[in-house]
Amino acid sequence: MNDIVSREIHLTSRPDGLPTPDNFGLVERAITPADDDIVVKNRYMSVDPAMRPPLTNGQQPVDVVMSGGAIGQVIASNNADYPIDAYVMSRAGFREYHISDGSDLNVIETEDEPLTAHLSVLGGTGLTAYGGLLVTGELKDGENVFVSAAAGAVGSVVCQIAKIKECRVAGSCGSDDKVDYLLNDLGIDYAFNYKTSSIGRELHTGLPDGIDVYFENVGGKHLDAACGQMRPLGRIPVCGMISAYNNKGARSEGVTTLSNMIYNRVTMKGFVVYEFNHMRDQFLADMRQWMREGRMKYEETIMEGIENAPHALIGLLEGKNTGKMLVRLAD
Amino acid sequence: MNDIVSREIHLTSRPDGLPTPDNFGLVERAITPADDDIVVKNRYMSVDPAMRPPLTNGQQPVDVVMSGGAIGQVIASNNADYPIDAYVMSRAGFREYHISDGSDLNVIETEDEPLTAHLSVLGGTGLTAYGGLLVTGELKDGENVFVSAAAGAVGSVVCQIAKIKECRVAGSCGSDDKVDYLLNDLGIDYAFNYKTSSIGRELHTGLPDGIDVYFENVGGKHLDAACGQMRPLGRIPVCGMISAYNNKGARSEGVTTLSNMIYNRVTMKGFVVYEFNHMRDQFLADMRQWMREGRMKYEETIMEGIENAPHALIGLLEGKNTGKMLVRLAD
Repeated sequence: MNDIVSREIHLTSRPDGLPTPDNFGLVERAITPADDDIVVKNRYMSVDPAMRPPLTNGQQPVDVVMSGGAIGQVIASNNADYPIDAYVMSRAGFREYHISDGSDLNVIETEDEPLTAHLSVLGGTGLTAYGGLLVTGELKDGENVFVSAAAGAVGSVVCQIAKIKECRVAGSCGSDDKVDYLLNDLGIDYAFNYKTSSIGRELHTGLPDGIDVYFENVGGKHLDAACGQMRPLGRIPVCGMISAYNNKGARSEGVTTLSNMIYNRVTMKGFVVYEFNHMRDQFLADMRQWMREGRMKYEETIMEGIENAPHALIGLLEGKNTGKMLVRLAD
Repeated sequence: MNDIVSREIHLTSRPDGLPTPDNFGLVERAITPADDDIVVKNRYMSVDPAMRPPLTNGQQPVDVVMSGGAIGQVIASNNADYPIDAYVMSRAGFREYHISDGSDLNVIETEDEPLTAHLSVLGGTGLTAYGGLLVTGELKDGENVFVSAAAGAVGSVVCQIAKIKECRVAGSCGSDDKVDYLLNDLGIDYAFNYKTSSIGRELHTGLPDGIDVYFENVGGKHLDAACGQMRPLGRIPVCGMISAYNNKGARSEGVTTLSNMIYNRVTMKGFVVYEFNHMRDQFLADMRQWMREGRMKYEETIMEGIENAPHALIGLLEGKNTGKMLVRLAD
């Protein structure tokens, strides 16, 4: 195959606070594929809150391509497991082309859903919500559930699974448009804009009997308010703490209500999505059924072109997305 | 039986901050036992940090005797299960005499240990440490353990069980004398006075590989420091948060490091001692064996007379005890 010029987004300096475009660079790289290489042309790249902590804690090296999920199409291959035109998932990150021996690729088996669903509801985002709520959160039918960042990619799936499980669901979000989306599109019971209200008072109103499961995406003031209103044997699966990620040392605002965990015997537990990999078949079957039944909706916020990937990540950290944040790459 | 005059300590007003003697009153009550009554004369009363939150949260009613553990001797009884002179445990609290039908009494079977051990290492205090560390904390042999309030009644038992389980143990306490006690009497690996040092730096020094189990008795700054140094799959059994109890709403100083729980998949879990009641036989067998082997020591801080019970509780909240705080009642 001929040489390829692939454009990539590198981390060029570590952000102090909210990342800025200056922390990233667009790098052109010439690639000469070998005969045995599988060449993947990326179509969609995933933009996730979990990409932020590695920028500061060192897991993401500087002057290296930004790591992350992506879906691409095989354009050159001598490997029958990864035939030309197949769609494949990788963690190869913010780049236009990806050269692989196949070991880091998973072929995507689409049914009647759009390709991008495999980066959101049917991908790691959906599995995070499903496993975090049902396994880590040990959700029981009919419980009282609070979801922060409820209009985000993970939060919106959590809300809908909790409603399917006949729970009373309250969600927080950062705009009145998102409140409308949560109430009218996702059909949860109570939603509020945390920027213009008291989280504690809203929770008293929305879940007057207290909280059985708080699905934690935000941290800080959200956790402070929720922890004070947990019911006996409540669970707090900790998916993320986006309010802390742009602070020095990823420190959140101080949480002062943790003593409520003692007599109420509350469990708070951090989790990561790979814990749930063994459940992927059941997850896909459940999610596809719920999608067919119209009970699992999803939104996408799509930005265009590799050069906009840093803006997509910064916008995500500012809460500018509803649902999944994606970057679409040019054909 | 003749009338008895029993003196009791009542909560008379709810404290705002550290309780003062004015929040309590000494009340004399005349009791006329019926023929079927079991009359218990209390000998020792237990003084516990867990008595503080009910003073504010309403679980302890005002103008009612202070609830708590006590050991007494039966002085009148027609019930063969509770014979005269038997020692019995109750939760009847700060009072000289207790009238019972037996349903709230447990006869104490002493072996070669002193009676007071049944209010400390062999009582609820010991079971709290044992269950909290081994069950809630899921301690594994050889792990790295941090214990706050390590020279307290529960903390000192936790330290010794962890050493028996071949763990590396660091403990915090509030005086240099207690540091000496922890290192030289209990034989833990590292101890520091949190009032004169940086908890975070001490933990780095004492447990340089990080913390597998943080046995939480204090909250606030202790938790803030420990949570930032938890190892993957670490556990934080939450026994108490004594630093918060005298604050409005039992709010601790703010904890800002909880995002560390996510990628390290840390579990924090509140517990109460009654969860472990089913383990009492195994607990007693283990503890008595360790005591015989000289591997389980305990200290007591004993105050004299029912009139000093409020001072004992206030002193406990100020950290004036080493080991178990007790009140001995006059013969």
